[in-house]
Amino acid sequence: MSPNSNSSDLAVGIDIGGTKIAVGIVDRNGEILARRSFSTEAAQGFDRAVARIVAAIDECLLESGRRRAELYGIGIGCAGPVSPTRGTIDNPYTLPTWDGVDIVTPLKKEFDRPTFLENDADAAAVGEAYFGAGCGAKSVVMLTYGTGIGSGVLIDGKIYRGAQGTHPELGHLPVELDGPQCYCGIHGCFEAIASGTGISSAGSAAGLGDARHVFAAHSAGDTRAAAIIERALQATRVAVWTIQHTLLPEKIVLGGGIIDDHFALFAEAARGAVAASTMNPQGCTEVVQAVLGNRAGIVGAAQWARMAQMK
Amino acid sequence: MSPNSNSSDLAVGIDIGGTKIAVGIVDRNGEILARRSFSTEAAQGFDRAVARIVAAIDECLLESGRRRAELYGIGIGCAGPVSPTRGTIDNPYTLPTWDGVDIVTPLKKEFDRPTFLENDADAAAVGEAYFGAGCGAKSVVMLTYGTGIGSGVLIDGKIYRGAQGTHPELGHLPVELDGPQCYCGIHGCFEAIASGTGISSAGSAAGLGDARHVFAAHSAGDTRAAAIIERALQATRVAVWTIQHTLLPEKIVLGGGIIDDHFALFAEAARGAVAASTMNPQGCTEVVQAVLGNRAGIVGAAQWARMAQMK
Repeated sequence: MSPNSNSSDLAVGIDIGGTKIAVGIVDRNGEILARRSFSTEAAQGFDRAVARIVAAIDECLLESGRRRAELYGIGIGCAGPVSPTRGTIDNPYTLPTWDGVDIVTPLKKEFDRPTFLENDADAAAVGEAYFGAGCGAKSVVMLTYGTGIGSGVLIDGKIYRGAQGTHPELGHLPVELDGPQCYCGIHGCFEAIASGTGISSAGSAAGLGDARHVFAAHSAGDTRAAAIIERALQATRVAVWTIQHTLLPEKIVLGGGIIDDHFALFAEAARGAVAASTMNPQGCTEVVQAVLGNRAGIVGAAQWARMAQMK
Repeated sequence: MSPNSNSSDLAVGIDIGGTKIAVGIVDRNGEILARRSFSTEAAQGFDRAVARIVAAIDECLLESGRRRAELYGIGIGCAGPVSPTRGTIDNPYTLPTWDGVDIVTPLKKEFDRPTFLENDADAAAVGEAYFGAGCGAKSVVMLTYGTGIGSGVLIDGKIYRGAQGTHPELGHLPVELDGPQCYCGIHGCFEAIASGTGISSAGSAAGLGDARHVFAAHSAGDTRAAAIIERALQATRVAVWTIQHTLLPEKIVLGGGIIDDHFALFAEAARGAVAASTMNPQGCTEVVQAVLGNRAGIVGAAQWARMAQMK
């Protein structure tokens, strides 16, 4: 399948999460011309979700006065693990009833356009790297502080892939040797301590409640809350130091719900780690805040549908 | 400068360390046709070292019955930090009197051949990736356990470069939060614990002597030695886990003096870390032993002189 030569360079971006699916028509400048979103309701079946995605794309096309034939491609960012090569979703954590489904084939068949599946963290990183906070950098690492800690790595404008095409999992970097156990296989990984879940779990144990309550208590001067936040900041320092000594990107983009509210706190920790390193040229890595918010997934998935077709 | 079209595809590989310089003529199969080595004697001046390198290359050419015009290029691997783009050596640690010298220009002038400078750990990784233990893998991380812990990363057959063209420093991955202070800027990095220097320093503090004595005492059942070795193995586990969740290479090559004598011990630790990960496909990364020994630097530097000229 080759890209449409009279294409207006529109692409579809689809962002699939455990609770919500968002669909948008995106132009070559990363602008969303029309968008729709609806509940994932994974338990009601995969076919129903595909049908709703198809309907949403058609609605977006109608709203923006375009036709299916004008689409350059379709990009899907989905809560992982996913297999970009097989086009399958293998996510027993937040999309359990869909385990192993092929999302690429039905959409490719329906629209007759090149269709690509990526991890949602990679899609968001593509969005920020091309149209957001990572703009202008040759290499970008994006860390998304949400329920977990998602990561996307772009090197020379491409999604970085490790052995067997799988992607780095920076949320599972070791940051404490004796921290809480994680499903990844070790104690004290970055996500187990600095994610929303990690902070909530420490907050509950301290009688403070979830992450939101921990941050509020911290602002009010609570010392137990301060210790939990400091631990998350120290996890950030260790993770950023590690990123500096492995992938060594030009920009580290911090995003996600926790960062939306507390960027200054986490940026100071991350920048401190970068500045402390004697083995890297000073100022070689910039720490910046994500700017696209929840548009990053749609915009990045659409952009990847373009990039993946270029040689 | 373009490669000689009637070239026999011979390249010069030069391996510059704090104590020794080795020079070889290498064919396209990674075979060393002739080699010379001599003491670095950095304190006696950089010009003298360049003159000795030039003489050694000419001797090697004479011995192998070749001419300068048959050389495809010259590759230099040097104890870093070095600047591949500027061609300068910036190593205040083991080549202090040469700080800031340009090694590329005089050799390029003398031989009128394309000349490339790389970190010695990267050169060794190129050697192992093309002609040694990393052969056949698309991505290779090499860890060299010597006085320090050197690292070289190859992705798709190319030396991986981070921001400002500098290379990953895997020896300075954080593996203990409260370990010994390192010049890199943190406490408890991989090198501070698992390198020859790290093991020697722990050995001296325990009254056991240097790394060689620590390993001997460990073999004899000494519990203090066992604790020091276990700490180095745990550092290896954490570092390998980190590599698995960042660069995620197909092969991890272990090399250097400590590995020559104790590969099984360190390989078991490294493989254990790979196997424990639930976020990577099982078996996606292999841990193997370096096979080129001290030839890796010459062979890799020569190979890089070829690779760097290919588009």
